[in-house]
Amino acid sequence: MALIVQKYGGTSVGSPERINAVAEKVARMRKNGDDLVVVVSAMSGETDRLLKLARSINTDPSPRELDVLLATGEQTTIALLAMALEKIGCPARSYTGHQVHIRTDNVYGKARILDIDESRVRDDLNKGRVVVVAGFQGVDEDGNITTLGRGGSDTTGVAMAAALKADECQIYTDVDGVYTTDPRIVPEARRLDRITFEEMLELASLGSKVLQIRSVEFAGKYRVPLRVLSSFAEGPGTLITYEENNMEAPVISGIAFNRDEAKLTVRGVPDKPGIAAHILNEIGKANINVDMIVQNVGADGTTDFTFTVHRGDYKKALDILKRVSLELKAREVSGDDKIVKISVVGVGMRSHAGIASQMFRTLADEGINIQMISTSEIKISVVVDEKYLELGVRSLHKAFGLEQKP
Amino acid sequence: MALIVQKYGGTSVGSPERINAVAEKVARMRKNGDDLVVVVSAMSGETDRLLKLARSINTDPSPRELDVLLATGEQTTIALLAMALEKIGCPARSYTGHQVHIRTDNVYGKARILDIDESRVRDDLNKGRVVVVAGFQGVDEDGNITTLGRGGSDTTGVAMAAALKADECQIYTDVDGVYTTDPRIVPEARRLDRITFEEMLELASLGSKVLQIRSVEFAGKYRVPLRVLSSFAEGPGTLITYEENNMEAPVISGIAFNRDEAKLTVRGVPDKPGIAAHILNEIGKANINVDMIVQNVGADGTTDFTFTVHRGDYKKALDILKRVSLELKAREVSGDDKIVKISVVGVGMRSHAGIASQMFRTLADEGINIQMISTSEIKISVVVDEKYLELGVRSLHKAFGLEQKP
Repeated sequence: MALIVQKYGGTSVGSPERINAVAEKVARMRKNGDDLVVVVSAMSGETDRLLKLARSINTDPSPRELDVLLATGEQTTIALLAMALEKIGCPARSYTGHQVHIRTDNVYGKARILDIDESRVRDDLNKGRVVVVAGFQGVDEDGNITTLGRGGSDTTGVAMAAALKADECQIYTDVDGVYTTDPRIVPEARRLDRITFEEMLELASLGSKVLQIRSVEFAGKYRVPLRVLSSFAEGPGTLITYEENNMEAPVISGIAFNRDEAKLTVRGVPDKPGIAAHILNEIGKANINVDMIVQNVGADGTTDFTFTVHRGDYKKALDILKRVSLELKAREVSGDDKIVKISVVGVGMRSHAGIASQMFRTLADEGINIQMISTSEIKISVVVDEKYLELGVRSLHKAFGLEQKP
Repeated sequence: MALIVQKYGGTSVGSPERINAVAEKVARMRKNGDDLVVVVSAMSGETDRLLKLARSINTDPSPRELDVLLATGEQTTIALLAMALEKIGCPARSYTGHQVHIRTDNVYGKARILDIDESRVRDDLNKGRVVVVAGFQGVDEDGNITTLGRGGSDTTGVAMAAALKADECQIYTDVDGVYTTDPRIVPEARRLDRITFEEMLELASLGSKVLQIRSVEFAGKYRVPLRVLSSFAEGPGTLITYEENNMEAPVISGIAFNRDEAKLTVRGVPDKPGIAAHILNEIGKANINVDMIVQNVGADGTTDFTFTVHRGDYKKALDILKRVSLELKAREVSGDDKIVKISVVGVGMRSHAGIASQMFRTLADEGINIQMISTSEIKISVVVDEKYLELGVRSLHKAFGLEQKP
């Protein structure tokens, strides 16, 4: 008899029919003897409906009141799911974030979970009930309602699993696991049975939208076994593991990509300490996140400095850079928002030389010019012209033999 | 500087435009220096939408989960009203029933308020904020969400006013006060500037739908000055007072009526103790509320027993009565669901003889036959054929001179 925390997203509970289907799934597992805590999101479309309602009243509502409003979305779902479970004879109880004391800091709209009082949940589990918990929401020290930001229900699920020391945290989504790459681009893409936590972190941050990155970090911190499964199909999904030295680990686990980036370059900056920090500080002050950063020293005592930002921040970042480059007496500022980032990810590359050269050769063979390179312990990322996205991902997927089981 | 608790019903906050209008009204009063606590209902239609959603999942949902669901209605409104207030520069904070500890018993769906922790509200008032509180909802001792039943927002308003010892509790509705009778029937009907608590109680229970009766009882218990006003028009409304010996009190305050009744009669029941109790006990077991009860002793040692019920319960009550009358060996059972009740109400009638005879004479002059009579300290009710409703109400309104200010 295992203790399982399950999380169902907005699409999985998007209609009364789907809520009934989730209830059937949950009741079946309960009958098999597992203890179940089910974390749910707002029904798909509900959060947008509420946001629209808020904006019809106040185009710039205070984050506190917005959280009070948005929290009704999950509260609706927990009540409906509990009703659906009771209908089929499965005892259940619903709880808001407030009721199970999901205590967060007071950063409305993107609060972080501090702790959870799991005693009440345990009580209900001991009485044979399925416990249904509202995802995405919590309560700060003063009793104000907070939300964790979009996708925060994943984090609620993981935090609940950590607090209860659950045997597994299952995240149900509309995909049936983590793939070697996006099957819409590479039809031969293969579902991974397991993936390490670090690889998942890299894949998530690189744009695989299966799991919210904060929930993966959270799971890693408390070593919560995490599984990604489909709400709509049966199957084992993908298990995210914490095996440090897995000899059987494939060299490369997957190919990730990100279409939402733009790059900016300052050329001919005096090569002095603190220049990069100064530039990034100005960008950061404008609340723009920087992804890749590359710096090369030129021959004439000046340096070129390139970084990427979210494409939506491109214009703002370019304006800041033009201003800063005047102060720095830089030679030239340029940018390009028609780029993409492609990354190969795998814990196995730590112990295998030559992954980088194989990657670069594969791209060169297809005539794809590499504009930027950035590497970490378990990933290599390149920036290329956006027109090469599909060609690049497909050729790398094939070159590393990802369509075959290792 | 007064401390005022205001309550706005579902129609008053039924759309973003109306919520903005309420915000304007509240902000104006705040500017005049009053401290304000605003209790709101769910937007009109919202509770029905949620009920429909629940029934699409479970035709007989558990009361606990239904309360979790319904409570989202007011939570939505409090957030939207706080946003609307902030937009026009009026600092505000919204709170759910849970957050201000509106503690109730655990009778889901019709919980009763036990106490309110007003410290948090006071804190915000001291900081110059308008406090917006969700009506209709509370939390039981174990932290479960409860609701007070339809119309319970009035009770929340009164309870909040009692806890804060507010100077006045203002109930905003779609009418601009309590009238001498329904203006749709008597165009000369006059708005009352003030009415006693006892009269209001009689008028409310007799079908004047201005205030929920429980809230009036609650107000009486804590002697909360209550005022009924219109959300849509300016005006002083009607103040409900607790003056016991008001020499200026008019003899009659108003004419109430109720179209929703039906009467049932058992004839020739043995005139023994416990017969009435037995009949009413059977009716009560079927969850049917009895309103008027009249019993006459006949000449032959038997008695006739007549009572009224809600028209919707007529058929069920008649079936029960037929069964019971067989056991009791009663001579005959009859019923009529084409009747109405008309009542004259006024604290002044305590010290004025002749009100009853004036009432009966007025009806007789119009050829209206009286089928039943029932009296209390401050009201006289008669049951007449439903076709006489308008004629009866109009002639009584005129006979008691209610169109003129006393």
